[in-house]
Amino acid sequence: MDIVSDPAVMQRAALEARRLGRRIALVPTMGNLHEGHLALIREARRRADLLAVSIFVNPTQFGPNEDLGRYPRTPEADLAACRREGVDWVFTPSAESMYGIQAAVWVEVEGLGKKLCGRSRPIHFRGVATVVLKLFNVCQPHVAVFGWKDAQQFLLLRRMVEGLNVPVEMVGVETVREPDGLALSSRNRYLAPEERKQAVELSRALREAQAAAESGRATTGAELVEIVRKRIERVASARIDYVEAVSMRDLEPIGAIEPGATLLALAAFFGTTRLIDNARL
Amino acid sequence: MDIVSDPAVMQRAALEARRLGRRIALVPTMGNLHEGHLALIREARRRADLLAVSIFVNPTQFGPNEDLGRYPRTPEADLAACRREGVDWVFTPSAESMYGIQAAVWVEVEGLGKKLCGRSRPIHFRGVATVVLKLFNVCQPHVAVFGWKDAQQFLLLRRMVEGLNVPVEMVGVETVREPDGLALSSRNRYLAPEERKQAVELSRALREAQAAAESGRATTGAELVEIVRKRIERVASARIDYVEAVSMRDLEPIGAIEPGATLLALAAFFGTTRLIDNARL
Repeated sequence: MDIVSDPAVMQRAALEARRLGRRIALVPTMGNLHEGHLALIREARRRADLLAVSIFVNPTQFGPNEDLGRYPRTPEADLAACRREGVDWVFTPSAESMYGIQAAVWVEVEGLGKKLCGRSRPIHFRGVATVVLKLFNVCQPHVAVFGWKDAQQFLLLRRMVEGLNVPVEMVGVETVREPDGLALSSRNRYLAPEERKQAVELSRALREAQAAAESGRATTGAELVEIVRKRIERVASARIDYVEAVSMRDLEPIGAIEPGATLLALAAFFGTTRLIDNARL
Repeated sequence: MDIVSDPAVMQRAALEARRLGRRIALVPTMGNLHEGHLALIREARRRADLLAVSIFVNPTQFGPNEDLGRYPRTPEADLAACRREGVDWVFTPSAESMYGIQAAVWVEVEGLGKKLCGRSRPIHFRGVATVVLKLFNVCQPHVAVFGWKDAQQFLLLRRMVEGLNVPVEMVGVETVREPDGLALSSRNRYLAPEERKQAVELSRALREAQAAAESGRATTGAELVEIVRKRIERVASARIDYVEAVSMRDLEPIGAIEPGATLLALAAFFGTTRLIDNARL
């Protein structure tokens, strides 16, 4: 396994591998790898000859009052996990090598980036789109693997790839969950024990709404949202950021549920920890 | 010579050529090819195994009151010229195939795009950066060739390539001029005979300023601008849009002339026709 921190070195190696006909997969991460990441890494491993995992806590996707400084960093454990999973390249650039003196070039995905999480995190998706395009250009993947846990991110990046004609196949992997249903996230570790216990209600609320849609008891986006809201509002330590039922095409709220194209997404605070989860219907 | 209009077909051919180890050069154009374009094409021809020329009048770089509709289109003559120059691929996409239903993904180069021409053409460089990145992704060039005639465009695209880690070598070619000094441009054909005669003063003014700098008579940006302004203000049919002496790094106005890093740039209207020219010092 090669650990590469210089973008130019990584790019040269990737371009050379491509020239030799090798198929490259990339899993972009911010490190602190958990089973959710490992599911992405295993999916990517199956799809390519050479597997790159990037570990980069991207400063441009954090707002001024967000948790960039305290975002968990566990480089030793991450490298060990990558080694176990048969990763070929771990790309760990510094912020300086990725952005130089200033980040002056941005990729903007109109519309999608300002909805759902984009409302409380106005610069987040611009940072995400920009860094992922940079990582694609550096690592030259044929295929890239992302989690449906970050559904808005995945839909927005898919739009970016299409809009900019980026020749990368985009693969989404289902959310990995704790036994009780809580979606895995590096931010779960911030939860106090009582918050952790109550956080399970997020996924339960989504499952309740999903069951209501499947049984025909709920037929509109508003009904789905109502089911989720009601349940989370009963959770003492939770404060809802948003609950929305939207079309996966444009992230606009839907009237009637569109089977196969509906995203039920939420964000909620437990103390200062912001968790997200979603279900596709 | 292959004439390709489908971006997916072009991309497949380019990726396959890369996989076979061929070196690709791209010259992005809006067609109506003149000797200025041919200089770019000849430079590109020398630098690669396979030469792609794109011909695409990109709607997203024209403002609502600009000349998109009447921009000269001469496809037959362009193809004949490409054939004569030994071009391998002419890529001629439709606006629909490049932008789908809506152009929702943009590349923004902060700073550089809002200065000089960007002041009177606020969306122009966003459109240029976006379409050039798309053309790069479709045509997969190792090297791309641009004209110094559009100095701001070249500097901005070079910044984009650096900022997004795009693995394309950027080459600039000196402006080609008429015998009297007027920079070649597809828009010269809009000039009435008297305007055409007077338009030569743009390049003469730049040369006068350049000579003043070389002889030490002018030592500051303000003096260079004054020389150019004075001369163009005497031209009956010309209306100055801007004359600026800026640093090539950030396009900010300079105090003392920085040898090797100073751009003296101007835009002027002759009737409704807007011409640009520049000199590097």
